[in-house]
Amino acid sequence: MADEVGERVARQIEFVLELDKAKRILRHNPLADGSRAENDGEHMWYLAVMVLVLAEHAAEPVNLARVLELVLLHDVVEIDAGDAYVYDDEGRRAQADLETMAAERIYGLLPADQGERFKARWQEFEAKETPEAKFASAVDRLAPLLLNHAAAGGAWLRHRPGAARVRARNAVVAEHAPALGPVVDALIADAVARGLLDDD
Amino acid sequence: MADEVGERVARQIEFVLELDKAKRILRHNPLADGSRAENDGEHMWYLAVMVLVLAEHAAEPVNLARVLELVLLHDVVEIDAGDAYVYDDEGRRAQADLETMAAERIYGLLPADQGERFKARWQEFEAKETPEAKFASAVDRLAPLLLNHAAAGGAWLRHRPGAARVRARNAVVAEHAPALGPVVDALIADAVARGLLDDD
Repeated sequence: MADEVGERVARQIEFVLELDKAKRILRHNPLADGSRAENDGEHMWYLAVMVLVLAEHAAEPVNLARVLELVLLHDVVEIDAGDAYVYDDEGRRAQADLETMAAERIYGLLPADQGERFKARWQEFEAKETPEAKFASAVDRLAPLLLNHAAAGGAWLRHRPGAARVRARNAVVAEHAPALGPVVDALIADAVARGLLDDD
Repeated sequence: MADEVGERVARQIEFVLELDKAKRILRHNPLADGSRAENDGEHMWYLAVMVLVLAEHAAEPVNLARVLELVLLHDVVEIDAGDAYVYDDEGRRAQADLETMAAERIYGLLPADQGERFKARWQEFEAKETPEAKFASAVDRLAPLLLNHAAAGGAWLRHRPGAARVRARNAVVAEHAPALGPVVDALIADAVARGLLDDD
């Protein structure tokens, strides 16, 4: 029994150490002050904070612990698969295959029951069907919008996605958290006015 | 009504943007690969992941959402107060005053009801009296131990705290999560054997 617990703990610690690598995966958006790119570890923390602060605006009631589980692990697969730019459709398809393999390997480090549970949470996030996954995905869209805007352009200046695409991609925010829709509209309008986004 | 909601959302977004600064507060321990210092944003994410993975080992049953709230916000006060080294007793006392002022300012950005609630959570974490705060503090000790060890010394090589102090400081891990006690013992024993910690 003690040996079984010890074996379980050993696998859990190995998983935790593996996840440290997410702190070295860089995203396309910068920090709010534009000083450097945000990494996946910080990003997952930031989404969790946004969930704590903004959950009251979810369109449907959500289980807070479950939304937190979703956002705290959703980008762990990028340890193997890297971060694809969200406006690159081809890259996103190839990315999906890489991420599935990554989930097998990384969640496979855990005791089987726990690995299956976390993998199912990741699939739940990706499927965007439950109230929790819908709200999590809205926050996952809003975060880089906030940061690109705060940093006076960020990834927009490199990729020039155009306001229409950014508006379309962020429509889920108003859908899954209606009170946050005006925030998205205001940020995009201001970005266009300042020339950070092209008004196409 | 719409204006009240808009005003509430505006304060929440201001708070979220302020918290971005935690990603620029550096801690004393490095990442697992020793490549650089960990920052507070990453650290809070890492504790949250450890809570998800290790909560089953808590000495008393814990409410998962509540432990997550505690760890996801516990170091936000360091945006104003900075990170004091844990083995510097004098620094830690001065730190407590700075952190209290920081909590007033930072949580004061939020709508009053929410600011009071999060400030109370921070005080709960600091008091270490509830089952949730005890388990959160155990994980907060284990995380830098794991990372300093993985990075072949990390902060230990600069500060040379000695094995006895590290052992004493991490005694709370075995106390609040008994199955994790042997992990602490093994990490410290290995660090002593490799000369990363002085066996005083």
